[in-house]
Amino acid sequence: MKEDIAELSINTVRVLAADAVQKANSGHPGTPMALAPLGHLLWTESMNYNPDNPDWPARDRFVLSCGHACMLQYSFLYLTGYALTLEDIKNFRQLHSKTAGHPERGLLEGIEVTTGPLGQGFANGVGMCISQQYLASRYNKPDYDLFDYYIYAICSDGDIMEGISSESASLAGHLGLGHLIYFYDNNHITIEGETDLAFNEDVGKRFEAYDWHVQTIADVKDLEALSKAVENAKKENVKPSLIIVRSHIAYGSPNKIDTKEAHGSALGEDEVKLVKQELGFDPDKYFEVPEAVLDYYQKAGKKGQQAEDEWNKLYNSYKKKYPDLAEEYELLRKGELPEGWDEGLPNFKPDDGGMATRKASGTFLNKVAEKIPTLIGGAADLAPSTGTLLKEYSSFSKKDHGGRNFHFGIREHAMGGIVNGMALTKGIRPFGATFLIFSDYMRPAVRLAAIMEIPSIFVYTHDSIGLGEDGTTHQPIEHLISLRAIPNLTVIRPADANETVEAWKAALAAKGPSALIFTRQKLPIIDASIYSSTEGLQKGAYIISDCEEKPEIILIASGSEVQLVLEAQKVLKKKKIQVRVVSMPSWELFEAQDDSYKQDIFPTQIRKRLAVEAGSPIGWQKYVTEDGGVIGINQFGASGPGKEVLAEYGFSIDNVVEKAKEILGGK
Amino acid sequence: MKEDIAELSINTVRVLAADAVQKANSGHPGTPMALAPLGHLLWTESMNYNPDNPDWPARDRFVLSCGHACMLQYSFLYLTGYALTLEDIKNFRQLHSKTAGHPERGLLEGIEVTTGPLGQGFANGVGMCISQQYLASRYNKPDYDLFDYYIYAICSDGDIMEGISSESASLAGHLGLGHLIYFYDNNHITIEGETDLAFNEDVGKRFEAYDWHVQTIADVKDLEALSKAVENAKKENVKPSLIIVRSHIAYGSPNKIDTKEAHGSALGEDEVKLVKQELGFDPDKYFEVPEAVLDYYQKAGKKGQQAEDEWNKLYNSYKKKYPDLAEEYELLRKGELPEGWDEGLPNFKPDDGGMATRKASGTFLNKVAEKIPTLIGGAADLAPSTGTLLKEYSSFSKKDHGGRNFHFGIREHAMGGIVNGMALTKGIRPFGATFLIFSDYMRPAVRLAAIMEIPSIFVYTHDSIGLGEDGTTHQPIEHLISLRAIPNLTVIRPADANETVEAWKAALAAKGPSALIFTRQKLPIIDASIYSSTEGLQKGAYIISDCEEKPEIILIASGSEVQLVLEAQKVLKKKKIQVRVVSMPSWELFEAQDDSYKQDIFPTQIRKRLAVEAGSPIGWQKYVTEDGGVIGINQFGASGPGKEVLAEYGFSIDNVVEKAKEILGGK
Repeated sequence: MKEDIAELSINTVRVLAADAVQKANSGHPGTPMALAPLGHLLWTESMNYNPDNPDWPARDRFVLSCGHACMLQYSFLYLTGYALTLEDIKNFRQLHSKTAGHPERGLLEGIEVTTGPLGQGFANGVGMCISQQYLASRYNKPDYDLFDYYIYAICSDGDIMEGISSESASLAGHLGLGHLIYFYDNNHITIEGETDLAFNEDVGKRFEAYDWHVQTIADVKDLEALSKAVENAKKENVKPSLIIVRSHIAYGSPNKIDTKEAHGSALGEDEVKLVKQELGFDPDKYFEVPEAVLDYYQKAGKKGQQAEDEWNKLYNSYKKKYPDLAEEYELLRKGELPEGWDEGLPNFKPDDGGMATRKASGTFLNKVAEKIPTLIGGAADLAPSTGTLLKEYSSFSKKDHGGRNFHFGIREHAMGGIVNGMALTKGIRPFGATFLIFSDYMRPAVRLAAIMEIPSIFVYTHDSIGLGEDGTTHQPIEHLISLRAIPNLTVIRPADANETVEAWKAALAAKGPSALIFTRQKLPIIDASIYSSTEGLQKGAYIISDCEEKPEIILIASGSEVQLVLEAQKVLKKKKIQVRVVSMPSWELFEAQDDSYKQDIFPTQIRKRLAVEAGSPIGWQKYVTEDGGVIGINQFGASGPGKEVLAEYGFSIDNVVEKAKEILGGK
Repeated sequence: MKEDIAELSINTVRVLAADAVQKANSGHPGTPMALAPLGHLLWTESMNYNPDNPDWPARDRFVLSCGHACMLQYSFLYLTGYALTLEDIKNFRQLHSKTAGHPERGLLEGIEVTTGPLGQGFANGVGMCISQQYLASRYNKPDYDLFDYYIYAICSDGDIMEGISSESASLAGHLGLGHLIYFYDNNHITIEGETDLAFNEDVGKRFEAYDWHVQTIADVKDLEALSKAVENAKKENVKPSLIIVRSHIAYGSPNKIDTKEAHGSALGEDEVKLVKQELGFDPDKYFEVPEAVLDYYQKAGKKGQQAEDEWNKLYNSYKKKYPDLAEEYELLRKGELPEGWDEGLPNFKPDDGGMATRKASGTFLNKVAEKIPTLIGGAADLAPSTGTLLKEYSSFSKKDHGGRNFHFGIREHAMGGIVNGMALTKGIRPFGATFLIFSDYMRPAVRLAAIMEIPSIFVYTHDSIGLGEDGTTHQPIEHLISLRAIPNLTVIRPADANETVEAWKAALAAKGPSALIFTRQKLPIIDASIYSSTEGLQKGAYIISDCEEKPEIILIASGSEVQLVLEAQKVLKKKKIQVRVVSMPSWELFEAQDDSYKQDIFPTQIRKRLAVEAGSPIGWQKYVTEDGGVIGINQFGASGPGKEVLAEYGFSIDNVVEKAKEILGGK
């Protein structure tokens, strides 16, 4: 009987997928049909979840790394009782529906993570497991295994081929993330044809080389073997698990099974009918869900409430025994920071001498680390250069999952995806650091953080040609504007050590992701007794130094160029020119202000403006008016001492003064 | 005696590296000191090269994937007689010197490829080997092994950790690129400390899983073992070779050997003196090159002329026997295309019905493929979707290195690096294709193509929210501006099938890299009997449709939005509004025009302008004036049928008309 209902249920999912894709006339039917048995096992037996509370902290996490197979996930979310109706399934891939072409977090409860760009989900899962292990390490106590859940993921050939997965897998093996249970859907088919067109490596051997526990299942329909493999994977607490599962794309489709055509297109009306016939369904019915199946899956879903009830009991008892820890966890989980976290923040004085903003960032991090126990992160093998080491804390390693410093290795892309995965667990405040130039290596991850609006913090140092000798290949030019162009991402490039503190405050307060841009080179500390408070950073742009009368010109700069325009202001002042200086560390924070504030900073009638930034000038036109100008860089950099390179590219007091005078009409 | 001079020579290189980095007080001394024996073997025994003609077609290629170790390469280029002086070495990392902080192609003869961003060189070498194999397959004849050279690369931990290397290695094994001889410098040290902080995978096993031939050398100083390993690698003609070499960073430095401090900083004056003592040099002399050493290396360099002479003899005989092939090769090598290559190019008519520009691109490619025999390329598992399959040709595979279609797999980053490597071989005209959204996965490679100004052609389809159902994760928003922001890269987004032909012509004529941006959705063919010739594309922007009188407003668009503004023009014309329409497929081509042409298109006095592009509006301000406006997208997309999504985001005739009227002051 159990087997009968299993088969009927699995076939129901196959037919739902075929129908939904056919109705949309767009989508990917093949993989949901192939993997329906795996989904069946996961949602009825392996995973702990509660459709009535998708946010239950101790639930198992499910990541569909091959997001295009989302009809698999949607089917099970609907059938097991999440907030999804059959109507939603019928609206697959339609505007404003919950059932988007790839699963989108926030659009539909039960979707842990937005996937689609291949390999990202693989890395996200690694980050989720790090968060689970970190929470377990901090909060679990004898008899209180509060955080003991697993991360399940389904990966396609594409996920396995993408470099981000290689990076993440190597790190996951290294860190001993035993709560990862990944399935590799080995279906032998890609968009271009048989996978062996481009891919015949020995995946199992490769993952063994990464120190993973590898199992192989000859047929995804063998539920018993699958179940046993999952049990083995759960028992293996140190090595991450890869279960390689042979499947047949579009299983149930007499003419499309095992073909590339079944990957990314509807099967066709006639073929869908044949599928239904083949699987014992009425070919003239659409979206047919036998009552017994719905009943069966709803029951499976209900088990979750029971599991959560038990967990809640455990947690309440824990709360009595460890009230401080419970209070801390609950606060952090709400996205709040402990009271007084920002007391005694560093306040840098000009007498301290110059300081690179990367160094000020490190000082900040080390100051607040104790007060924010879930602030964890690290660098892509650049901790000493990015200043991101939390000096009082250990490293997260195979033997110490309570460590707070992460050595991501020279794997920027994985770092991005893993930080996102960490941020997906409420309460964890992760950051990842590298040179700004290498933000290029991790853009797909940065973009997904922005799409999901999760509070990943990306620290990017060595922010301009000012880094000097490393030269062309290491000097960012187009990177600031390329990051600013990503919707929902807050980019902040502070001008000195004190603005750096403000930048971190803004990032920690943000609901979405931030990119903090720091210098390699020392910058003078802007004198608070002469210039405005750096708290102005919170508004994105502020008058850091004004003139006595109505400004004739506004000099605008971010980061290391602020000190340059302040010096230029002095020179121009001697020439009796009224100059306002605006520090503009963040376009996004500024654009969020009201018009009246914007007018205060950039009054419409003051049209002579000069923006100075050691990067591409693109986009600055918006702020300087047609009567103004920009000192930026439209070419690649060069190797040489930083100051010399900056001067060569026009970032000198003389050139700013010169250009300002030009704008003023040769005054 | 040979051993004595070897040791002295190797130590000379170590001391040169220590001195140069010390003088610059910046750089990476450790790896050159560690790998000097390997360099010695390569430049005196293994590699065929001619310092007097660094462009000799049959030379072996050397790739320093760990570009930071460039003092190793500079030392050998200087010592063996390339156009580099000891003075240049002394100017290491100084502005305008040839000896930049990372090796830069074009700055210094003998540098095959600009490296620094880790992993790129690994992929470039794979591309170079593909070019070598393709040339061999096309031009080699019995008794004429014209192209039989090898690609040598040195890779660091970072290169091996980066995902792009995993992708490239998997593909190289799959394709059977037996002429790759890669060394992995296993020195156990990274910037953060011991590599086992983040990296303890079994690299040899992993590469065996990729089907590489793996050898291990216990000590880089064992020249005999190294030499034998290289011989073995040369004999292995199918599998690529990885030689894992244990080395000790900063070998010769008593206090810095095997420390992370020796990776990226000068050793310090005192320590450099100790190095010299340790290695038997005078601690008070700088940049000391014993005459015997210079002599020895110069002799090694001279062997290259002899090798080239022999090759030239072979080639001249070949030329007599196969004059047509020789002529073809020589022409292509000059970067020219065969006469008449563009005869009979497709000319699409409105009656043909609509056509996606990706499809027009495929038609073009298949039309010219026969005439340009070294036009080779493929897609990252998206050939059917990007339309890039050359239908009459086979696939490049392990068994067929004359194939012209590449199945890069779901490995966009490797594709970018490999296409660059292919483009580095004169005569080869490579392209690589994926969806525009996935340009993010390969940005570091695109940037390096731009830095090197090599003619890589990147084909990006599915260029906007117009792609529809695949939704948010697949819809480019910030990508056009992010690509336009890269210096030296020409971005072209044609408006219809005929502009697509022009776009390809521009890309094939360009000296530097191009990004061609195509639609997924069908676009009407713009009627040449009504509108201007699409040849205007070559100037970046052109008046595709003008009005009878002086324009009141200029509508500007690229790609799929051109047809939209042409329709809006019709509506506005009925309202007696004088509208000029400018098709602006490429900012870069337009900016290269003279002021007079720019004025013809955008006369200063016509300030009412509206730009329409389904992407970020950033940067368009430059072209629309403050009296104009932009219809763009400042948020992420959504899943739904393409037309509906476009309309939802304001890309409808009505909205363009509405916005134009607003700009005209409610006319």
